[in-house]
Amino acid sequence: MAASSKEIEEGTAFTPKFDKDGLVTAVVTDVASGDVLMVAHMNEQALSLTIETGEAWFFSRSRKLLWKKGESSGHVQRVKEMRVDCDQDAVWLKVEQAGAGACHTGRRSCFYRAVPLGQSGTVTLEFRDGEKTFDPNAVYKK
Amino acid sequence: MAASSKEIEEGTAFTPKFDKDGLVTAVVTDVASGDVLMVAHMNEQALSLTIETGEAWFFSRSRKLLWKKGESSGHVQRVKEMRVDCDQDAVWLKVEQAGAGACHTGRRSCFYRAVPLGQSGTVTLEFRDGEKTFDPNAVYKK
Repeated sequence: MAASSKEIEEGTAFTPKFDKDGLVTAVVTDVASGDVLMVAHMNEQALSLTIETGEAWFFSRSRKLLWKKGESSGHVQRVKEMRVDCDQDAVWLKVEQAGAGACHTGRRSCFYRAVPLGQSGTVTLEFRDGEKTFDPNAVYKK
Repeated sequence: MAASSKEIEEGTAFTPKFDKDGLVTAVVTDVASGDVLMVAHMNEQALSLTIETGEAWFFSRSRKLLWKKGESSGHVQRVKEMRVDCDQDAVWLKVEQAGAGACHTGRRSCFYRAVPLGQSGTVTLEFRDGEKTFDPNAVYKK
């Protein structure tokens, strides 16, 4: 309805629009470099915990559980600013990333490969900022 | 499986991991400012068209159709770099945003409201960069 959509887009009430799995999309950028570090999801509890504590919590779609970023690695994300988008189904976190990186593969960002443009058919990725900044085997202890 | 996961994360084959609705998440940032402009979704066709043409195409979950960013408004997004994340279920587009903005509400970015941190209970959003940069009624003609 028009009125409701106007309130969601132009109002100040935080009314997150969870998808059919109860999730919103969360984009995390590095507050210093502006780079996108990762994309993940939050359920209502992850969202509340992030707002309350100022540290990033998520909901894992594959493991189907709530997790705190850095709970294994120590690489917590301190949220400096959090924003919500027009239709309130996505949030943007600007964070201070503790430790050497956000990606479980050992890199600063999860986005370490470029997709070349201007071609059709098979696409071959190109590594960019692909060097590992920490050893995931040492950081993610069993 | 371990081998497959290693290839997805460390290989150069572009093998997007579509969700059960056939979509990947797309984060769009402004190549100049680094700001997140919008978050949307792409199906296989939107991804192919974006790669081939260097302009951003998406798939609308609500309207259930393929759309080109700027097809109504003229505010196309020229993709300067595209990246994929570790598990290949999200892409990051760094774009040159044509026109005055990306958001259908008339703003440069869809993320024009901050979520205050450090509190529980009812959350009241705070406008940030909330001024409109174009008139959506004039731009999105019926």
